[in-house]
Amino acid sequence: MRRFPISLAGMAAIAACAPAVLAQDTPPSPNEIVAQAPAGDWRPIAAEDLLVMRLEPAEGGEERQVVIQLISGPFAQDWVTNIRTLARAGSWDDAAVVRVQDNYVVQWGIPPAAEGEEAAPLPDGLSGTDESGYASKVGDSLASALASRAANRTDPYASVTTHFRGWPVASDGERAWPVHCYGMVGVGRGMSPDAGSGAELYTVIGHAPRHLDRNIAVVGRVVEGIEHLSSLPRGTGPLGFYESAEERTAIASVRLASDLTEEQRPGFEYLATDSEAFARYADARANRRDPFFIVPAGGADICNVPVPARRLP
Amino acid sequence: MRRFPISLAGMAAIAACAPAVLAQDTPPSPNEIVAQAPAGDWRPIAAEDLLVMRLEPAEGGEERQVVIQLISGPFAQDWVTNIRTLARAGSWDDAAVVRVQDNYVVQWGIPPAAEGEEAAPLPDGLSGTDESGYASKVGDSLASALASRAANRTDPYASVTTHFRGWPVASDGERAWPVHCYGMVGVGRGMSPDAGSGAELYTVIGHAPRHLDRNIAVVGRVVEGIEHLSSLPRGTGPLGFYESAEERTAIASVRLASDLTEEQRPGFEYLATDSEAFARYADARANRRDPFFIVPAGGADICNVPVPARRLP
Repeated sequence: MRRFPISLAGMAAIAACAPAVLAQDTPPSPNEIVAQAPAGDWRPIAAEDLLVMRLEPAEGGEERQVVIQLISGPFAQDWVTNIRTLARAGSWDDAAVVRVQDNYVVQWGIPPAAEGEEAAPLPDGLSGTDESGYASKVGDSLASALASRAANRTDPYASVTTHFRGWPVASDGERAWPVHCYGMVGVGRGMSPDAGSGAELYTVIGHAPRHLDRNIAVVGRVVEGIEHLSSLPRGTGPLGFYESAEERTAIASVRLASDLTEEQRPGFEYLATDSEAFARYADARANRRDPFFIVPAGGADICNVPVPARRLP
Repeated sequence: MRRFPISLAGMAAIAACAPAVLAQDTPPSPNEIVAQAPAGDWRPIAAEDLLVMRLEPAEGGEERQVVIQLISGPFAQDWVTNIRTLARAGSWDDAAVVRVQDNYVVQWGIPPAAEGEEAAPLPDGLSGTDESGYASKVGDSLASALASRAANRTDPYASVTTHFRGWPVASDGERAWPVHCYGMVGVGRGMSPDAGSGAELYTVIGHAPRHLDRNIAVVGRVVEGIEHLSSLPRGTGPLGFYESAEERTAIASVRLASDLTEEQRPGFEYLATDSEAFARYADARANRRDPFFIVPAGGADICNVPVPARRLP
């Protein structure tokens, strides 16, 4: 009768990141490796690379803030420039979350004009974009990362994957592109040749939809607050669009951290993906040796090695 | 100024499964292939393999029902037998969702006893379980599926993956195991050698945590209603456990479909994974040729080819 004890410890134990009170000879978990990484292995994220989206407060009054890190060069910089322009113009202050499709994406943007109405104007000075920007030529630094021991050549979608300057990337050797992992942010678009301006964005809330790689611009990733998006009610219309405007979650504001007051401005850092600590973390993700695990996998896909990010101490 | 039109069509267009009004010469999307599959390519799911979990109604009164297909042999049958016993005993009728960890799992079960209290009794007759049941010997049918053209040898976690009798499986050639894709259901456990009874279950709500493969029993998958679990508020305690009992979502009942009245009993079928239609669907998932896509990926991981399931017509 008591052969199957139900204990909180037991319920917790399926976790991959148990906060640990462990004997000293226990191999560290990935999270412990990250927690113990030296300060010098962390890189600050520039304030102009952080997009701060405030949603309307939840029904109980809870504040909901989502922080997005914009991607760095050589990737998608035309869209990133547009996103900065849109944030500075306050373009998303009347915007809303319009779509939540389970195991796929949450999408937000400037609500479309009703039939017969003029679309909301976008600010002047937006860059033109085209699909050639979905991937970038492999330069020397990237070639070196792709040739490193940390690169993975067992990927169903690309000849090689690796992390580069804090981002998960895939490559065919000539070109490289950021990949659609959980929490990555991309640019909604219409049918080709439209490549989207950046005014409509989405984030991944399910299994990595890698078939979108090279088909849409990837412009960033959520570094805090994704739960405010991933736990929203799913839309019941086609593709998870909400069927009525009332179901949408309103966006209060989207601003670059660099345009906020020092008091409001969040600061973040990420674990340098060319650091010794990251290499140990990635190895531990692929070969779990912490006590809960019996059989280490012996490998991990690029999206199962998320780049650690945290608030500045 | 109007170079970047924001249209509902544009907003919809990032979807991977656009309901289609397409010209006849347009290659079909994966979903269209599934919709056009002949009736003979579908297999009914036995009522004793369907677990029907009713959550307490949502705040607005909305009914919330989750339907789980229990896995078939040769996999995890000791736990499946226990789960049938637990359902028949009404063991989960005072249970609750106790944990929601973003990009990981939703976990439910019989709430643990408070300090000093006796744990809720489990029904008599539960099978013993042990970790040897996490994987199964490869018999002739499975060997044939693993050797087929549909099997995938580009997987970071296993030498080969394929679909077998409606389930995603991985293998090292000698043994095979069901894999942790989005929506798969597993058995919470304590530290080894505890392998869990089946009284605590979880489902995956994020990127496939394949490092759990062969470390926990996989016993099924959600075929309907996962959004009632994946959209729950994330727990704020360690590992996503709720910090107070009030935050939990109560389970009204869990029953086998075979124990429900004919009126209450849901009927489901899945697309046979050895059918011609499934092969075309899997190929289309790996090589998107429907109009939105520019560059087909040329491959897909096992978890990006979910097995279609639907209500019986």
